[in-house]
Amino acid sequence: MENRWPTSFRAVDGSVTTPQGFSAGGLHCGLKPDGRPDLGAILCEVPAAAAAVYTRNAFQAAPIAVTKESLGVDGRLQVVVVNSGNANACTGEEGLADARRMRELAAQAFGVRDHHVAVASTGVIGVRLDMDRVREGIGRLPQATSKNGGDAFCRAIMTTDLVKKEACAAVEIDGRTAYIAGAAKGSGMIHPDMATMLGFLTTDAAIDRSALSRLLAGAVDETFNMITVDGDTSTNDMVTVMASGLAGNRPLDEQHRDWPAFAAAFRYVCEALAKAIARDGEGATKLIEVCVEGAASSRAARVIARTVAGSNLVKSACFGADANWGRIIAAVGRSGQPVRTDAVDVRLGDIPVLVGSRPVAFDEEKAKAYLLGDFVRIVVDLHMGEGRATAWGCDLTYDYVRINAAYRT
Amino acid sequence: MENRWPTSFRAVDGSVTTPQGFSAGGLHCGLKPDGRPDLGAILCEVPAAAAAVYTRNAFQAAPIAVTKESLGVDGRLQVVVVNSGNANACTGEEGLADARRMRELAAQAFGVRDHHVAVASTGVIGVRLDMDRVREGIGRLPQATSKNGGDAFCRAIMTTDLVKKEACAAVEIDGRTAYIAGAAKGSGMIHPDMATMLGFLTTDAAIDRSALSRLLAGAVDETFNMITVDGDTSTNDMVTVMASGLAGNRPLDEQHRDWPAFAAAFRYVCEALAKAIARDGEGATKLIEVCVEGAASSRAARVIARTVAGSNLVKSACFGADANWGRIIAAVGRSGQPVRTDAVDVRLGDIPVLVGSRPVAFDEEKAKAYLLGDFVRIVVDLHMGEGRATAWGCDLTYDYVRINAAYRT
Repeated sequence: MENRWPTSFRAVDGSVTTPQGFSAGGLHCGLKPDGRPDLGAILCEVPAAAAAVYTRNAFQAAPIAVTKESLGVDGRLQVVVVNSGNANACTGEEGLADARRMRELAAQAFGVRDHHVAVASTGVIGVRLDMDRVREGIGRLPQATSKNGGDAFCRAIMTTDLVKKEACAAVEIDGRTAYIAGAAKGSGMIHPDMATMLGFLTTDAAIDRSALSRLLAGAVDETFNMITVDGDTSTNDMVTVMASGLAGNRPLDEQHRDWPAFAAAFRYVCEALAKAIARDGEGATKLIEVCVEGAASSRAARVIARTVAGSNLVKSACFGADANWGRIIAAVGRSGQPVRTDAVDVRLGDIPVLVGSRPVAFDEEKAKAYLLGDFVRIVVDLHMGEGRATAWGCDLTYDYVRINAAYRT
Repeated sequence: MENRWPTSFRAVDGSVTTPQGFSAGGLHCGLKPDGRPDLGAILCEVPAAAAAVYTRNAFQAAPIAVTKESLGVDGRLQVVVVNSGNANACTGEEGLADARRMRELAAQAFGVRDHHVAVASTGVIGVRLDMDRVREGIGRLPQATSKNGGDAFCRAIMTTDLVKKEACAAVEIDGRTAYIAGAAKGSGMIHPDMATMLGFLTTDAAIDRSALSRLLAGAVDETFNMITVDGDTSTNDMVTVMASGLAGNRPLDEQHRDWPAFAAAFRYVCEALAKAIARDGEGATKLIEVCVEGAASSRAARVIARTVAGSNLVKSACFGADANWGRIIAAVGRSGQPVRTDAVDVRLGDIPVLVGSRPVAFDEEKAKAYLLGDFVRIVVDLHMGEGRATAWGCDLTYDYVRINAAYRT
C-alpha cells in the first residue's frame, strides 16, 4: 500500500495536540450507556483561524447550524466540543437550543467567547440530549484537557469505530517546522443511528483564513468526499480545521513559496484519515482503492471512481477475493459518464485483467492471492483524456449485515 | 400486499403463450454446466408489432446491438431467442458476429426473416458463446416450442432466480378479450457475472406500433426501472414486447376508448414482473415498497423513492425488522432532491413513525411484527407538491453477501 507522496513533508506520529498551541481531552459523561468516553474537546491557546465543511444532506443536525453560526462571526475558533452517543438530529427547535446551550457551557468552562466554539455530535438521532449530563461533563472538560489528551479526544468521538483514527505531518515553512494533525471518526452505525463522519484538523502554521478555507474544501473533496462505506450520508458530517499560527511563519496563502509543501502535507493528513475511515468501515476486512485515469474530465473520473468503489457487487467480490472484472466494468458503464466502450483497461494491483475492453488471460491464483490481502487497488484507465481521481471503500461482508440488521433483543 | 388496481382488467393465470398467436419453449444445449435449460424462444404466428427498451449501461452487450438492428428494419418481431449461461458481453467484434449468427440460425430454424428475430443473452461475461452448442440447440428449438411451452421458456432464461416470474392479464377491448402476458428473469448474479434483467411481453391486442413503443417506455420507467436490488445495472438488460393483433380489435392507440384499460393491464403485468424480480433479489427475505408522496415533482419522487429503496442501511434495517426511521430520513436527505426539512412524514405500513420531521411514539412491538413480514411498505410524504412515485427493493441479508462473495473453490 505505497503512496508516492512528495518529499516536501514528513508523516510523523502525532495527534491533534502535536501542533503548537493545542490541547485536547475526553471523558465519560453518560451519553453512552457503557461507560466509554462520550465527550471531548480540542482547545487552542489563541483564537485560531478556522474553516469547516458540512454534510450535504438536506437534514442538517443542530450542531451543524450552531457551528456555522460560530464561524460566521469572525472565522475563528478556539474550542471544538464534541459528544458521541447522541447526534442531536431531528430534534427540532429544542435540539437547536440544546446545541447552543452546549456551546455556551463550553465557552464558559474554557473561558472563551461563544462564537469561538464549534459543536459536533454523533450518535442516536431523534432523541433530545441529556443536558444535565452534558452540563456536568463540560464542567469537567477543562481539567481533562491537556497536551497529552489527543488519544482521549480520539476515543471520545468514536461510535462503532474499532480503532482510533489520527494522522500527523511535519513540513518546513520559512525554515520553521509546522505540524498538521487530525483526528476522525468513521462511518460506523449503531442502532438506531446513521453513519457520521467527523474530522478535526489542527495546525500551528500561520495561514490566511480564506486560503485555509479553500484548502480545506479542496482537500475534503479529494479525500473525505471520496470514501464510501455504504453510500449513505449522515446529517451530522463535519470537518473542521483550526490554525493557531504559533509556528511563527509568514502567513501562508497560495502565493507563498512553501504553499505546495503545506498543501501536500495537509492533503496527506486528510487522505490518511479518510482511508482509515474506509478501512474501518463496518464489517470491513480490507481497504479498496479505486484509481481512475484517462477520464474525459476530473468530474467524470470522480463519479466513476466512486461508482466502482460503492458497487455492492464489486465490494462483495473483493470480500470473496474474486477477480470479477465484469462487475467493475459494469459499474463504470452505469456511472453515466463518457466512456469509450472499446478502450477500457482494468488492473487489479499490477495485474491487467482487461485491455481495450477485452479480457486478457491472467494468473487466477496470483489474482486471488492479491485480492486476499487487506489492501486492493483497482485501476481503471479510460484512455479518453486527462481526468483522474481516486476513491476509497471497503468490502461488503457478513459482518456489515450483522451490524446493521441490528436485531433489538 | 394489496393494490388498488382498476377493475377494467383481470389478473389471470397465464404465460407468454396465453395471448393468441404465441408459442414458446426451452431446452438445455450445454451453455449451463448443470443440465438446466439454457436456451428458449417465443414464436409468434405472424410478424408482431414490436418494441423494446434497453439497458442504459454504456457497455451494451452484442445481443442488444443485434436486437436494435432487427427492430430498426420494420419494427416487427416474430421470434425472440434467448440463452442463459453466457451474456455474450465484452466479446468484441467476434461476439457481435456470434449474436448475428444466433439470429440467423433462429430465423432459419423457425422459417422467419432475420430482422424479425430478437436476441437476448444472460450469464458469464467476457467469454465467447459456444456456437456449436448454440447451433445444435437452436436446431431443436422449433420442435420444443408449443402452446404449452411458457413454463419451459421461463425456466430457460433463469440464472440465480429461485422462482420463475410470469404474469398475465385479460382486458376487454371493443368487446373482445385481449391478453397481455410476460416472463422475466431477475437480477441474480452468478460468478463471474453481473445482474441481468430480461423481460418479454406478449399480447394479442392489435396496437399501433408507435403507441406500443410509448406505452412500453412509460410502463418500464414506472416498473422495471423502479426496482433496485443492489444498484447495479447490467450490460444486457432488455424488455421486449410483441403484439400479434390476433384478438381482432380495432387497433389501439391513445385515442381508443379502451386505451386506459389496456394501458392499466399492461402496466399491471410490468409491475407484477418487476416486483417478482425485486422479491427474488439475491438473498432477499422480503419485498420492500417505497411510496413517495407530496414531492416537488414526479422526478424528485422517483429519485427519492429509489434512494430509499437502494439504501444499504434501510435494506439492512428491514432484514433486522428494525423500525429505523433515521436511516429512511437520511436517505431522503441525501437524495439531492428538494425537501422541506421540517415537514416530512414517514409511515411503516400504517404505523406513523415521523410526523413533521419529528419522531412520534409508536408501538415498537407492533412495528417489529410488521417488519418481520415478507412485505414492507415505507411511505414518505414530503408535503411539497403533487409528485409521487413507487420503488421496489429487497432486504440486504447474509445470503446476499454469501452469493456474491462467490468464493471460487
